[in-house]
Amino acid sequence: MSGHLTVAEAGESATIAAIQKAAPSSLNGDDAAVLHPTSSNSRHVCTTDVLVCDRHFSFLYSTAYEVGVKAVSQNFADIQAMGARPTAILLGIATPGDTDLGVISDLARGINDAAQPWGAELVGGDVVLSTDLVLSITAIGELGGPAAALTLGGAGVGHRVIASGPIGYSAAGLDILRHYGSREAIPKEDAIAQELVQWHCAPRLEVERGTVARAAGASSMTDNSDGLVRDLSMIAQRSGVRIDLNRSAITPDSTLLHAAEITGVDPWEWVLTGGEDHTLIGTTDARLPTTYRPIGMVRSRVAGDETTPYVTVDGVRPAYTKGWESLR
Amino acid sequence: MSGHLTVAEAGESATIAAIQKAAPSSLNGDDAAVLHPTSSNSRHVCTTDVLVCDRHFSFLYSTAYEVGVKAVSQNFADIQAMGARPTAILLGIATPGDTDLGVISDLARGINDAAQPWGAELVGGDVVLSTDLVLSITAIGELGGPAAALTLGGAGVGHRVIASGPIGYSAAGLDILRHYGSREAIPKEDAIAQELVQWHCAPRLEVERGTVARAAGASSMTDNSDGLVRDLSMIAQRSGVRIDLNRSAITPDSTLLHAAEITGVDPWEWVLTGGEDHTLIGTTDARLPTTYRPIGMVRSRVAGDETTPYVTVDGVRPAYTKGWESLR
Repeated sequence: MSGHLTVAEAGESATIAAIQKAAPSSLNGDDAAVLHPTSSNSRHVCTTDVLVCDRHFSFLYSTAYEVGVKAVSQNFADIQAMGARPTAILLGIATPGDTDLGVISDLARGINDAAQPWGAELVGGDVVLSTDLVLSITAIGELGGPAAALTLGGAGVGHRVIASGPIGYSAAGLDILRHYGSREAIPKEDAIAQELVQWHCAPRLEVERGTVARAAGASSMTDNSDGLVRDLSMIAQRSGVRIDLNRSAITPDSTLLHAAEITGVDPWEWVLTGGEDHTLIGTTDARLPTTYRPIGMVRSRVAGDETTPYVTVDGVRPAYTKGWESLR
Repeated sequence: MSGHLTVAEAGESATIAAIQKAAPSSLNGDDAAVLHPTSSNSRHVCTTDVLVCDRHFSFLYSTAYEVGVKAVSQNFADIQAMGARPTAILLGIATPGDTDLGVISDLARGINDAAQPWGAELVGGDVVLSTDLVLSITAIGELGGPAAALTLGGAGVGHRVIASGPIGYSAAGLDILRHYGSREAIPKEDAIAQELVQWHCAPRLEVERGTVARAAGASSMTDNSDGLVRDLSMIAQRSGVRIDLNRSAITPDSTLLHAAEITGVDPWEWVLTGGEDHTLIGTTDARLPTTYRPIGMVRSRVAGDETTPYVTVDGVRPAYTKGWESLR
């Protein structure tokens, strides 16, 4: 590549060429990308996230490659939470002119690597100048077959609450990073701390958890992005129900207890409000989909009763309830 | 709405609610939006643009409503340039916390109004904090029927070069704004100046120009976003041809001559390098699609001959050739 050129020195064509080299796609390079359906009842599903440097990610803690991986994981989690299969990514970059071209390449490489297990690819984008480094990631997925998408509003009383993947690991990883002050300061031999930091910086989701849940007849789904209580509250609100979590099913495991010892943080805070794991969480009145575990039950809720929370733990208000608020 | 609340005062939920009120869509509000195909051989087409305040638009010259209209027009032009029909928009906003909530509402209202003639809608998005106001717009469209998409690479020797819509009007409008220093200073009675400024601030494209061109058998297409010479050079490069513009067909009209008198700018600069009209330009070896006019011919080009430009005017190198460069 071009050594230590900045994006301003490289210019638009060379910057786009570096991205296309790191994340090649034959669909990229025209006015817009054409996505071919792969199923007979194909519907497309789309979502977008905006990530601002030093607010949603930090190069103090993460490499550009990891930022690319995480950006894909969080958007693909939204696609999966509809029961769909991610197929394509669009990447918008607003960047200071003095950003090293290598940072942009590494970011694209992370996106490419995280998309590959899905057979998905980076099909288009835009690069412009700005003060902050701002990434805009759009993910597109495909929903095939006769079944409806998995929405927030499908939970019914008596359904089981289910999850696939860790809960609270990303937030624990962030607190470990804050505790040590840098990635390098974390003891290399502390494999648990390293694993949690990995979950924070570059979570890699197992593929097809959304399609598997939809095929198994799940009734609602979202991902743990803003915090378990907050995200499940969305399902409860839309479905007009209460979600009661089983305390023993979400009790901090030995990995989180280890992180709690290091940081002095109550691990229940990570579990209940951490978010950013992008673990799929939802409900079902059918069989448990593969890799999912039961973590609670859907209960009835009196409409208009504002004294009962939407999410309880063993029937009572959770110890922590706040979650990520993007404009505060 | 909420008077003069800032987005930080309003918070995430109220800001999203204001956007959804200004641009209502039943597809919006879940983890991702589901887009249903409307044709039997449906392929989806997607594109994204990032717009930075005071770089790609300015509230000195444009209202937030107009910024929304223009953002849709420029992205829908890319969808149309594939021969597709725009169906959906995703909007990412990174904003300073002290931005008035009304600005965000007006922006969404502009997006909604510009999308409506297409039957398209704002189906999702994200709102976060940042230093600059940065908008990321993703447009999705649908390509139906058996024909291929209109790409950059389909121009053949002997095809006619065609255009639908004005060329150079947006750049002339910008120079008029710069000349007068503000929107208010432009004489109200100067209808021509007002029209050109409108083309710069909120271009409104006639609907279905892309599908009409594809139905009529056009061979290649793009839109005039970075400048006529630059955009046609992309078609010429990808197609391995030279595009020869007919000087008389692109000669500045009385509208541009009026603007040239006011500003002292050579109107050929607007025509050849202005861009941002988002007029559809392309080639055809079939009949002229409705609303299109011929503006030149596709000629042969010796491969590897770097002395001959990709685009000529009456056989010679154009007087102006530069165009918009997003990282300089």
